[in-house]
Amino acid sequence: MAETSIKSMDAIVSLCKRRGFIYPASEIYGGINGFWDYGPLGAQLKKNLRDAWWQDMIMNPCWGRPGPDGEPVRCVPVETRIIQHPKVWEASGHVGGFNDPMQTCRQCKKLVRADHVDEMLREAEWFGPLVSLFESGDHLDIDRLRQWIKKYGAKQAKGMALVREQKKVLELLLALAEDLRNRGEEMTLHQFLQRIATPPESAQLCDMCPNCGGDLTAPRAFNLMFKTFVGATTEQTDDNAAYLRPETAQGIFIQFKNVLDTTRVKLPFGIGNTGISFRNEVTPRNYTFRSREFEQAELEFFCHPDESQDWYKFWRDFRMEWWQSIGLRGDNLVLREHDPDELSHYSTGTSDVEYRFPFTAPGFGELEGIAHRGCFDLSQHQEHSGAKLDYFDTERQARLQAQGLPKDEINKQCRYIPHCIEPAAGLDRGALALLCEAYTRDESRPSPEIMRFHPRMAPIKAAVFPLVNKDGMPEVAAKLHAELFKRFGHLGFIETDPKQSIGKRYARMDEAGCPYCFTIDSETLTDQTVTVRDRDTGAQERIAIDRVTSYLEERLDG
Amino acid sequence: MAETSIKSMDAIVSLCKRRGFIYPASEIYGGINGFWDYGPLGAQLKKNLRDAWWQDMIMNPCWGRPGPDGEPVRCVPVETRIIQHPKVWEASGHVGGFNDPMQTCRQCKKLVRADHVDEMLREAEWFGPLVSLFESGDHLDIDRLRQWIKKYGAKQAKGMALVREQKKVLELLLALAEDLRNRGEEMTLHQFLQRIATPPESAQLCDMCPNCGGDLTAPRAFNLMFKTFVGATTEQTDDNAAYLRPETAQGIFIQFKNVLDTTRVKLPFGIGNTGISFRNEVTPRNYTFRSREFEQAELEFFCHPDESQDWYKFWRDFRMEWWQSIGLRGDNLVLREHDPDELSHYSTGTSDVEYRFPFTAPGFGELEGIAHRGCFDLSQHQEHSGAKLDYFDTERQARLQAQGLPKDEINKQCRYIPHCIEPAAGLDRGALALLCEAYTRDESRPSPEIMRFHPRMAPIKAAVFPLVNKDGMPEVAAKLHAELFKRFGHLGFIETDPKQSIGKRYARMDEAGCPYCFTIDSETLTDQTVTVRDRDTGAQERIAIDRVTSYLEERLDG
Repeated sequence: MAETSIKSMDAIVSLCKRRGFIYPASEIYGGINGFWDYGPLGAQLKKNLRDAWWQDMIMNPCWGRPGPDGEPVRCVPVETRIIQHPKVWEASGHVGGFNDPMQTCRQCKKLVRADHVDEMLREAEWFGPLVSLFESGDHLDIDRLRQWIKKYGAKQAKGMALVREQKKVLELLLALAEDLRNRGEEMTLHQFLQRIATPPESAQLCDMCPNCGGDLTAPRAFNLMFKTFVGATTEQTDDNAAYLRPETAQGIFIQFKNVLDTTRVKLPFGIGNTGISFRNEVTPRNYTFRSREFEQAELEFFCHPDESQDWYKFWRDFRMEWWQSIGLRGDNLVLREHDPDELSHYSTGTSDVEYRFPFTAPGFGELEGIAHRGCFDLSQHQEHSGAKLDYFDTERQARLQAQGLPKDEINKQCRYIPHCIEPAAGLDRGALALLCEAYTRDESRPSPEIMRFHPRMAPIKAAVFPLVNKDGMPEVAAKLHAELFKRFGHLGFIETDPKQSIGKRYARMDEAGCPYCFTIDSETLTDQTVTVRDRDTGAQERIAIDRVTSYLEERLDG
Repeated sequence: MAETSIKSMDAIVSLCKRRGFIYPASEIYGGINGFWDYGPLGAQLKKNLRDAWWQDMIMNPCWGRPGPDGEPVRCVPVETRIIQHPKVWEASGHVGGFNDPMQTCRQCKKLVRADHVDEMLREAEWFGPLVSLFESGDHLDIDRLRQWIKKYGAKQAKGMALVREQKKVLELLLALAEDLRNRGEEMTLHQFLQRIATPPESAQLCDMCPNCGGDLTAPRAFNLMFKTFVGATTEQTDDNAAYLRPETAQGIFIQFKNVLDTTRVKLPFGIGNTGISFRNEVTPRNYTFRSREFEQAELEFFCHPDESQDWYKFWRDFRMEWWQSIGLRGDNLVLREHDPDELSHYSTGTSDVEYRFPFTAPGFGELEGIAHRGCFDLSQHQEHSGAKLDYFDTERQARLQAQGLPKDEINKQCRYIPHCIEPAAGLDRGALALLCEAYTRDESRPSPEIMRFHPRMAPIKAAVFPLVNKDGMPEVAAKLHAELFKRFGHLGFIETDPKQSIGKRYARMDEAGCPYCFTIDSETLTDQTVTVRDRDTGAQERIAIDRVTSYLEERLDG
């Protein structure tokens, strides 16, 4: 990957704040780690993404494309609660198993996810010089180590044993080096870091804290579900404990039977929803990518076990296409099939749609997982709740009856717990990918920052400008604005602005990602044409004013 | 109000379950008190309600109607988090003051909101006979009291002291009656109930538990916010405590400054959002009306103090009109201005849009509150956060400069903390009102239950039926269905169904609230007309098949 195509995350975060896409939550109170709010443009961007998912997954699944059975794909929505009965999370395995390994720094008391330690160390300003110092020669240069302490350690890594007890730790470090040499071994970077992080009196070598350089505890399991207490009591006990859902999926599974009983859906069919979930991340990071409160869009698609592999492939491929369709084109988006050893014990196939974010590059980060979950979830809830969650397949029954199979055999084959394919997308991650993909610098423009949103996603759909705020132009602009607003206002903002130079107004729209600007000028008054300016190229052309609506229809509705 | 117009809540709840509008949350685990899920029709009904609010309040506020200043009303959206910094709720007053008075039953240990006790007693089966017994004569008829214990008390009010210790309590009751007589007083119902609820050994008379008839503790304050703990620690202390928001409004106030700084909004303008809030209700009840997790749609409209009364009246009146526009017509909907003694100390005016629910009739329940909140919220957050939340009014400055006022005086008048008008609607309550209003029984029809939703709210917008599933009719129906689906599918479901008798299919659509059914019959094949059936009247007319789209456009888009 060419270095130039890596976008600056700082620049994106800055534009998102400056133009009202994303703000830190509770910012006037110093913020709250892992929580982000959306400003006006961000809120509408997310609504466009959410509505597109609802439309393309539930109302008109897969754009009307037939499923692998040749029939239209059928889905229905639900809306389920963030707080459910705590037994739901026992059945789903989240109470027992939804843990991350966590380490605590004995010096600064900060907590860190064990598998984030290396990445976070690499991000620390003081860490690079330390590593290059270790790697620079085949012996430990104590003088340079002392220089490092003076320049970096004493200010930025105050928790490190080497910094706090320089003399003793250096002695222990040299002793370790000698000991290894005597055994014919070389010191690894890992050993080096542990030795200088660990206090002299400690019996065991410890990992290094990416915050202060101190010594971390051994990893221990930390459950990621937020706990709360339901009911009017001031006692907080396990009797009234409940959890904030860590995923919306389980709400669908536990309503599977109600949906089956109260609608006329027949297998195969899907149940989908969007909604907020919570995970008490040990180390929330990478902007909105790993936050503690986030929105999901999940579909659970139920089918016969024999047909489940076809449906799995169908959904996997459609979901990749869908993300491409809303603007994540190019090689920043990949579909990655999990290796067999990555799969959950109940899954016979899982794929991730991944995006190359600036903070993951050259690697990728997950936008959506498409998992073949077998009959795991329904079976678990059947076992834990005692409710029957199997399905009697009357269509299969009719087919088998026509084949003349004995009744017992038919009943056996037609009653089963459906298998489930789960395309589970993150809407905040989706919005972040749209923002990162859209962000473009074109140094040839006076204002170089452009947000190249797909027109369907753009929070501002069009802008209408009078070239100057007089000579009858504002009136013509107001009329065109009203017309476009009436026709497209349900899709996003239609802007108008009579002030400032036209270049500044275009630049503002570029930064906000408005795809088309229509300008009324003196020619408009004589020949009824307007200028339409394309955000991405900056190119302008003249079209008849009465063609503007159809021009936008072709570009926004598709 | 005529008794016949009171709808049966049982019938509405039953239809809502049976047709997939509303399910108890976690039903297969026995449910969880105060939480409700939405099935396919309910989820789409709520989406239609939410989208209509977003459209009419943010994208095109007040249907384009000018505000009291003669200018278009300007609003922008945000999306803020459920979990914010805990100081937000100290500033807003929720930590200190968001309490309900709660009483606990010493017998059955149930908790009840003090101001719900009387209403809940009236709903208990055993309570009516007890009251009528007390009211039937001017002396206490011990025999009839004993009969009541046998028939009701012993089974349904086992916690009542009278039931548990009949002899002693009867003695105490008679003693009380005599004592009062000697003082020339008569026993009140309240005294009677307290005396028979309270154990003989108790020093003080206690209120009666509506669940078991037992003795309630004195009311004590119970904070309604759900508490949770943020961050990777297993210790649950005040240091890491946080709250689930009890309203979305505060998220708007704390982002007021960011919105001001990053968009080009000028006063007056509004910031709106929709989202889930939580209140740990002591006694959740009345179906989805008082639930513990619920969705709000809130606008905070900021303006100059001098103009705030005009804006308050403007929003109050528009909000009433809006609810009427989506189908809550007639005298079940009222706008009620609060009496001065009902107002919060900071409010100079509050109105409620109230609906007469079957369970509140002949009274009303709140759908939305429109409050003039003065500068209370911004001032509180300014004080608690230290951030400056005032506004410098450049437009006012220009006007005052033109008037030639001295600079100091201008600056004084132009820098102020905006006043705020808050129309705060409950979307679950709104959906429930739509369901109650829509529910109609027409005994003249074979299937008498009809859901008369306003077409804009109806989850199913139209249905296309072939009269019989042969003779070329299914093909024509499929073509018309595809056409309607393409044009209206983003608004709701477009159904089609070739099976069963046409009467049964109409009845199913009536129950689901589908406003228009189009039927393809043998005439269609010869003269290109279809039958359109109106849900509310059952009347049918023939229209040309190529007029169906415009027929629906006129009725659905408006």
